[in-house]
Amino acid sequence: MAPPPLPPGPGALADARLLVSPSLDRALVRSLGRTAGRRAEPAPDTAPDGPFLYVGDVLPGPLRTGRLLWFHSVNAGTDALLTAGPWPDGALLTRTVGRMGERIAQYVLGWILAECQSVPEYTTQHARAEWRRLPSSLVAGETVVVHGTGRIGAAVAALLHACSLRTVGVRRTLGEAAPPPPGFERVVAAGSAQETAELSRARWVVSTLPLTGATEGFFGPERFSAMRGASFVNVGRGASVDLGALEAALRDGTVRRAVLDVLGQEPPGPEDRVWRLPHTVTTSHSAGITVDEDVVTDFAACWDAVTRGRTPELAVDTGRGY
Amino acid sequence: MAPPPLPPGPGALADARLLVSPSLDRALVRSLGRTAGRRAEPAPDTAPDGPFLYVGDVLPGPLRTGRLLWFHSVNAGTDALLTAGPWPDGALLTRTVGRMGERIAQYVLGWILAECQSVPEYTTQHARAEWRRLPSSLVAGETVVVHGTGRIGAAVAALLHACSLRTVGVRRTLGEAAPPPPGFERVVAAGSAQETAELSRARWVVSTLPLTGATEGFFGPERFSAMRGASFVNVGRGASVDLGALEAALRDGTVRRAVLDVLGQEPPGPEDRVWRLPHTVTTSHSAGITVDEDVVTDFAACWDAVTRGRTPELAVDTGRGY
Repeated sequence: MAPPPLPPGPGALADARLLVSPSLDRALVRSLGRTAGRRAEPAPDTAPDGPFLYVGDVLPGPLRTGRLLWFHSVNAGTDALLTAGPWPDGALLTRTVGRMGERIAQYVLGWILAECQSVPEYTTQHARAEWRRLPSSLVAGETVVVHGTGRIGAAVAALLHACSLRTVGVRRTLGEAAPPPPGFERVVAAGSAQETAELSRARWVVSTLPLTGATEGFFGPERFSAMRGASFVNVGRGASVDLGALEAALRDGTVRRAVLDVLGQEPPGPEDRVWRLPHTVTTSHSAGITVDEDVVTDFAACWDAVTRGRTPELAVDTGRGY
Repeated sequence: MAPPPLPPGPGALADARLLVSPSLDRALVRSLGRTAGRRAEPAPDTAPDGPFLYVGDVLPGPLRTGRLLWFHSVNAGTDALLTAGPWPDGALLTRTVGRMGERIAQYVLGWILAECQSVPEYTTQHARAEWRRLPSSLVAGETVVVHGTGRIGAAVAALLHACSLRTVGVRRTLGEAAPPPPGFERVVAAGSAQETAELSRARWVVSTLPLTGATEGFFGPERFSAMRGASFVNVGRGASVDLGALEAALRDGTVRRAVLDVLGQEPPGPEDRVWRLPHTVTTSHSAGITVDEDVVTDFAACWDAVTRGRTPELAVDTGRGY
C-alpha cells in the first residue's frame, strides 16, 4: 500500500496560511494558532493564492487544490472527507483520535456489562415498583470478536481482556505470522473459516471497522447467520452493516441484541429501518466523541512531527482510507 | 477480637452426620456428600443425638445445640443466621463466597459505566425513535470511595482501579500503618476527617459493609451531606442505610443517584419508602448471587482445611459477625 504523502517541507510550511473551519470554537482556534505560530483565519470561500493548511471537519470543494499542503481533521473518521471529492494531490491528511480508544472501549464495556447486569430491565422494573430477580452473568471466559485491530480495536480488546474476556481480532489480511497485537488472544483473517468459527463461538461481536470500499455491507447475511446468539455492537461505520440482514438475524436469534452507535443515515429519519429492529438500541454517534482538548493535543503532536520532517502517527493513508 | 472456634477434631468429625437444608438441590446434596465421604441427609425437625454438621441457608431453633460441630452457610451474608438465635457454643461457622467478589465488582462497574454512558437514557430514547446526543463521560481519574476493605471491597476496588479510577477504601480501624490492600490507592478510617474529605471528592461511593451493630444506620445524614454529587451504590446490607437521610440527600443533590441492591426490608412492600426516592434504581439482592457450584467449591475448600486441623479461610468470627 502507498505510504501517506511526505509532510510539507520547512519552506512551504513557513509560508503557509493557517485556515480553520468557521464552525470551530474561538478558544480552540486561538490554541491552534499558538501551536502553528501564526494567526488562524476562518477559511474564505475560495482558495488562497499561496500554500495553506486547514484544520476542520469538512473540506469545501473550492479548497480542494494543490495549494493545500495539509488538512488536519477534527474528527477521527475521514471517510466523508475522502469521498466528498478528489483528494488534492500530495496533501497530507491527519486526524484527531484523542482519547477515542479509551472512550470507545468504555462505551463497549459499559454496554456489555449493562447487558450482563440487566441494567435497562432493572431500571424499568424499578419504575414499576417491582422487585424481582432478573438474570445476571459474568463476562469472564466469554468470547468477544473485535473486527478491526487498529488503535480503536486494540483499545477495546485491551479493556475487555483486562475483564477476562477471550478476545479475538479480525483483520483484512494476516500478513506475516506476527504475534497478535496486545489485548488480543488471537487474530484471524476476515472471510476465513477461522472467522466463521469464532463468530459462532462469540458472545459479543464488536465492529470498529472504518468505511472503505472493502467494508461497505461487510456485515451481511453470511456473517450474521454464522453467529449463534452473539450481541452485536457497532462503533465503526453504519454503512458496513446491511440492516436488512441484521433485522433477519435479530428475528432468528442468531443475533441476540444490537447496540448501534453509527448508522448509514445519520440522523435516521422517522421511517428508518433501524426503528423496526427488535432488541436494538441506537446511540447518537457518541461512543468516540472528540473534544476540543483532543484536537489541540493531536494537532500539536502532528505539528511537532511535521516540523521535524517526519510523517505524523496520525496521518491517514488517503488511498486506503484510514 | 476473638478468633473463630477451632475446627472440630478428627474423631468428632468422623462420627458426625451430615445434615442439609431441605431446600437444597439434589445434585448439590450429592456433591456435598461426596466431599464429606458420607450420605447427606435432609435435616430432621429435631436435633440428632450425636454430633452433626449442617449445610444450608438457615439454622432452625431446635438444631441450635452444642452437638452442632460446624455449619456451612450456602450464602455469604451470615447476619440473619447469627441474629436469629444464640450461636451454639464452639460451633464453627463457614460461608460460601464463591465468585462473589468478581460478581459484585462487575455489578458495580456495570452500573458505573451505565451511568457514564447514559445506558438507561439511551434505551428509553431509542424506544421513542429519537436520535440525539446524550452526555457521556470517562471514568479515568474519578474518585470512588469503597466502604469495606475485605474480600468484596478489595475485588471492587481492584476492578475499578484497573479502569483508572482513584480508589479510596474506608475501614473501621486503620490498625498499624500498613500499606493499603491491593486495589486501593488509599485507605482512611471510618468517621475520620479524611473520610469526610474523600466523600466530598467522590464521584461514586460504594458500600460493601456487612450488617453488624457498628454498621446499622452507618450511612445517615452526616455521611450523605458530606457528599458533593456522588452516586451511591449499596451492595452491602440495606440496614446500613438510613433511607430518610438518603432521600433528603437525593433531593438536595448531595447524592446524585442511588443504586440499591439491598434493602432493610426485602422484598420491599408497595408502600416502602424506597419507591419514593428520586434518581434511584433497586436491584433484587442479586449483585453477589452464589450458585450451587460455588457452594460445592467452597464447602470442599473448608472440608480440606478442617480435615487438616486448620481454620478455614471462609470461617466467620461469630462475635464480630463477618
